[in-house]
Amino acid sequence: MKVAVLVGSKSDLEAAEKVRARLTEFEIPCDVHVASAHRNPDKVDRLVRDPEVDVFVAMAGLSAALPGVVAARTLKPVVGVPLHRGLGLDSLLSVVQMPPGIPVASVGLDASENAALLAAEILALKFPEVVAHLEKYRAKWREEPPAGSPS
Amino acid sequence: MKVAVLVGSKSDLEAAEKVRARLTEFEIPCDVHVASAHRNPDKVDRLVRDPEVDVFVAMAGLSAALPGVVAARTLKPVVGVPLHRGLGLDSLLSVVQMPPGIPVASVGLDASENAALLAAEILALKFPEVVAHLEKYRAKWREEPPAGSPS
Amino acid sequence: MKVAVLVGSKSDLEAAEKVRARLTEFEIPCDVHVASAHRNPDKVDRLVRDPEVDVFVAMAGLSAALPGVVAARTLKPVVGVPLHRGLGLDSLLSVVQMPPGIPVASVGLDASENAALLAAEILALKFPEVVAHLEKYRAKWREEPPAGSPS
Amino acid sequence: MKVAVLVGSKSDLEAAEKVRARLTEFEIPCDVHVASAHRNPDKVDRLVRDPEVDVFVAMAGLSAALPGVVAARTLKPVVGVPLHRGLGLDSLLSVVQMPPGIPVASVGLDASENAALLAAEILALKFPEVVAHLEKYRAKWREEPPAGSPS
Amino acid sequence: MKVAVLVGSKSDLEAAEKVRARLTEFEIPCDVHVASAHRNPDKVDRLVRDPEVDVFVAMAGLSAALPGVVAARTLKPVVGVPLHRGLGLDSLLSVVQMPPGIPVASVGLDASENAALLAAEILALKFPEVVAHLEKYRAKWREEPPAGSPS
Amino acid sequence: MKVAVLVGSKSDLEAAEKVRARLTEFEIPCDVHVASAHRNPDKVDRLVRDPEVDVFVAMAGLSAALPGVVAARTLKPVVGVPLHRGLGLDSLLSVVQMPPGIPVASVGLDASENAALLAAEILALKFPEVVAHLEKYRAKWREEPPAGSPS
Amino acid sequence: MKVAVLVGSKSDLEAAEKVRARLTEFEIPCDVHVASAHRNPDKVDRLVRDPEVDVFVAMAGLSAALPGVVAARTLKPVVGVPLHRGLGLDSLLSVVQMPPGIPVASVGLDASENAALLAAEILALKFPEVVAHLEKYRAKWREEPPAGSPS
Amino acid sequence: MKVAVLVGSKSDLEAAEKVRARLTEFEIPCDVHVASAHRNPDKVDRLVRDPEVDVFVAMAGLSAALPGVVAARTLKPVVGVPLHRGLGLDSLLSVVQMPPGIPVASVGLDASENAALLAAEILALKFPEVVAHLEKYRAKWREEPPAGSPS
Repeated sequence: MKVAVLVGSKSDLEAAEKVRARLTEFEIPCDVHVASAHRNPDKVDRLVRDPEVDVFVAMAGLSAALPGVVAARTLKPVVGVPLHRGLGLDSLLSVVQMPPGIPVASVGLDASENAALLAAEILALKFPEVVAHLEKYRAKWREEPPAGSPS
Repeated sequence: MKVAVLVGSKSDLEAAEKVRARLTEFEIPCDVHVASAHRNPDKVDRLVRDPEVDVFVAMAGLSAALPGVVAARTLKPVVGVPLHRGLGLDSLLSVVQMPPGIPVASVGLDASENAALLAAEILALKFPEVVAHLEKYRAKWREEPPAGSPS
Repeated sequence: MKVAVLVGSKSDLEAAEKVRARLTEFEIPCDVHVASAHRNPDKVDRLVRDPEVDVFVAMAGLSAALPGVVAARTLKPVVGVPLHRGLGLDSLLSVVQMPPGIPVASVGLDASENAALLAAEILALKFPEVVAHLEKYRAKWREEPPAGSPS
Repeated sequence: MKVAVLVGSKSDLEAAEKVRARLTEFEIPCDVHVASAHRNPDKVDRLVRDPEVDVFVAMAGLSAALPGVVAARTLKPVVGVPLHRGLGLDSLLSVVQMPPGIPVASVGLDASENAALLAAEILALKFPEVVAHLEKYRAKWREEPPAGSPS
Repeated sequence: MKVAVLVGSKSDLEAAEKVRARLTEFEIPCDVHVASAHRNPDKVDRLVRDPEVDVFVAMAGLSAALPGVVAARTLKPVVGVPLHRGLGLDSLLSVVQMPPGIPVASVGLDASENAALLAAEILALKFPEVVAHLEKYRAKWREEPPAGSPS
Repeated sequence: MKVAVLVGSKSDLEAAEKVRARLTEFEIPCDVHVASAHRNPDKVDRLVRDPEVDVFVAMAGLSAALPGVVAARTLKPVVGVPLHRGLGLDSLLSVVQMPPGIPVASVGLDASENAALLAAEILALKFPEVVAHLEKYRAKWREEPPAGSPS
Repeated sequence: MKVAVLVGSKSDLEAAEKVRARLTEFEIPCDVHVASAHRNPDKVDRLVRDPEVDVFVAMAGLSAALPGVVAARTLKPVVGVPLHRGLGLDSLLSVVQMPPGIPVASVGLDASENAALLAAEILALKFPEVVAHLEKYRAKWREEPPAGSPS
Repeated sequence: MKVAVLVGSKSDLEAAEKVRARLTEFEIPCDVHVASAHRNPDKVDRLVRDPEVDVFVAMAGLSAALPGVVAARTLKPVVGVPLHRGLGLDSLLSVVQMPPGIPVASVGLDASENAALLAAEILALKFPEVVAHLEKYRAKWREEPPAGSPS
């Protein structure tokens, strides 16, 4: 059981670490990699072929190609996280409006928390030990949501 | 192994049937339900508690609450599909901009094909027999993509 | 005569308190509740069935489902207040672009003042003692508007 | 008990008649008036002072001033309906983003159905005979929603 | 020769004073009035009928009705200035997207400088003494533009 | 007394002819020119220097430079008309968001009617014979607006 | 001297052929390839390494990754053409908002004509025989622009 | 070999100097000029005719006419850089949505770095000594991208 979080540059590591922190709390192994679809396509290719990874999380701002490039190279689920760097709408539309044939599971702008939860839910199908963590999280969440604006 | 596709009204059934058609080709059992978060919350609640369902797909237009309402009631992965009914941006933002704590895996506007593929990829983690279908699809896709505009 | 103001989390209480402050000045009883459509649907259900409430005010940011969920569960008028948390357009479109059959009375982004006034105007139809408060407010408003940019 | 529906020109009468048709089914008296905030301010003033009207519905496209102009001249509730004539966002933002002090209850683009329902809900507070109509509508709606895309 | 600048509330006076400052440099008499289309329609009506005014400048934010209301009540040219209070697009679209029959001469967001220049150019048709001021301004502008981003 | 209407290509002549038709009804001489800021800057320069012209109307779509280029070369008032060719927002923002120092009087998307009216109002300051035409138009407009959606 | 035009699927070939038609008129050799960044990264890699190509033109809709992927793999100039398939803004922002380090020369939505002209201008720096073609085109363009809305 | 960078006013010089700094590192001669399409059309004309310039970079905010005006007056490649001064979308759409016949190579908002790289890539076709600089830059970029959010 492993999640691989990919960001294109060191400047996006803070968002990636939020994903890792949440997954670590869930006792889900998580590696964070700086590997850009544009700068290091071979590194992305290599990471994407890692048979131990079950779910990928790819995070990027502006014209955000990384989630789609990962999704086109694997049949594992890919969670895409648009980061708010330019107008906001640029990375959001780049991540979510993928052409048919290349599914990316987009979460909201800068939504590291939901990206981790989504990865955990996917893993929980196969690894029942994750369910207890999700249930505990959900129970706590019912009392007090994470920062933000739940409705 | 089962996918449940939820739409809020009969008028959205056509989009749901596209998801089912793709999943049926992959030999993944798929039920389609008309069950609105607003009109039939109890039906949604009941469907969401079905222990046989592994992945939910929720499709809605305008202010699209259904994906989030499903996601808040289950710990199974929920794929959200914004349908282009009003401005387009309305359902897209309603589905993807979920508050922290309630993960929805959004695909693009009217992206039934990608919703089915994403559900299949998630199931493939647990049910290895799906992998062969995905590989066959991907191989064919490399030759000839589905209608749309791959890049 | 009672107004119930619902917000999804404690972090939105400040906006709710502005509504209560204005209504209190109008001698309109007003309860504020933290009750999320996603986290506490049963609490929302229970609040919505309170026969003493005449008007609901529901406030939420991002993909803002609360106003619609309340509106679908009651036949009392529901005022929706989109809160500016993400792009602004996300909560605005989520609140105002409701599908047919579920009316939400949307005011503008972060418009606590107008939400309170709208609730008061609705109550004034039935409770004539509110009219005097509205007339006094309106008279003062003609001299000096509340902070913002009237035209 | 009376609802007055105002549109700025004959070309918007079709949208107004949809509001009237729904209200007539609910046995709520409803007058439709062509009265523009810009062309006939005196007529608007006169209509707005009609003591028999309980709720106003004002519908307009492009830069849609009518709902706000009505709201500023009455203390009765005003439902605003942005009509999709130009970009869509123009009338939507003009109706919903009112400055503080002038509450307009905005519904969605071209949302005649919801405007009528909202007016009926407001009237039902004072006129209990409307409740039965709303309950019947809601019950039927649970079975089969009006055209559109409920979620 | 006179320009009347109208803003809806004291909080917008700073923008109005920038218009007056520029016009005063051009020796064009300019009155600034706080007169809201919504709060003081009679005051707006009275100001609009002032036979000495040649050009009106109306400035407003959010759903910005003032320029259109002035334009509908006079046959003198009306310059509309959208003020950036909410999303920016709200006042911009409210001012510029006027329905046919009510011309408003919109300048850009917060564009007090251009509003004054436009008023001066209009006056210069009738009052040739303004031309020299405009020529002097234009000559200086060729050397050094006002703050902002000319292209 | 003369208005010059400039469009960048023959394909925009239809919009220009609507301006001319309205002005002709008002007995205001109006010339229509195909003269592009990009293709024929010298022709634009020459037209702009015509001392008989009192008001310019410049119409363009997409990235609409013509109104600003005319405005920068004359001290006469320039009415800008964004034409809906691409996204709509592109020409609208190009025409209205002029940098400080170059005033353009923008009307709405494809608003030929309002462009003609604005030009006539400007001329009426100097040429009182136009006032009667405007008054007659306004009187008729009160009865029956031009096609579109007045509010 | 050669231009390579890349599109991700056969459904985009029509846009590519417009680029080729214009370049062929300029006697500039031009190859059109269906090669998707997602489906055929190796084919893209191979095409990008073709030493005979001087300029690449990459065209894509929705989340349009192709231009950026080509630009990251070559040091030759890459012209990006966003195709209007979904909202329009999605491909436009995906193509133009590239992160620093990967330059893409974006033209407008569906702007095949300008893409060809830009490629020709770039080639003309090195291949003077192209200049005459551009001059002839420009001369003709001054008389009669291509379909669209020049300003 | 020379690049000319044009900005409309001194206030935009900082962005221009970033382009020059990058080009200077590549040993590409680069002149920076303050020359506005609106304020100094003759200066723009003169600069544009400089036979020594191979590539132009034109930078502007708001309604950004400069890149298009330069592109219409030369057959050399023109790189357009929209500067974020108003809404962001205003300059972006003004630069990228050029009408057919006038190619501008747009980069992203405030993308000085990519503008310099694009100019260098274009020059490298003719001046092979630039290639080594680009290769060195690209190699370094693979290790560590410039500030921003590569994907």
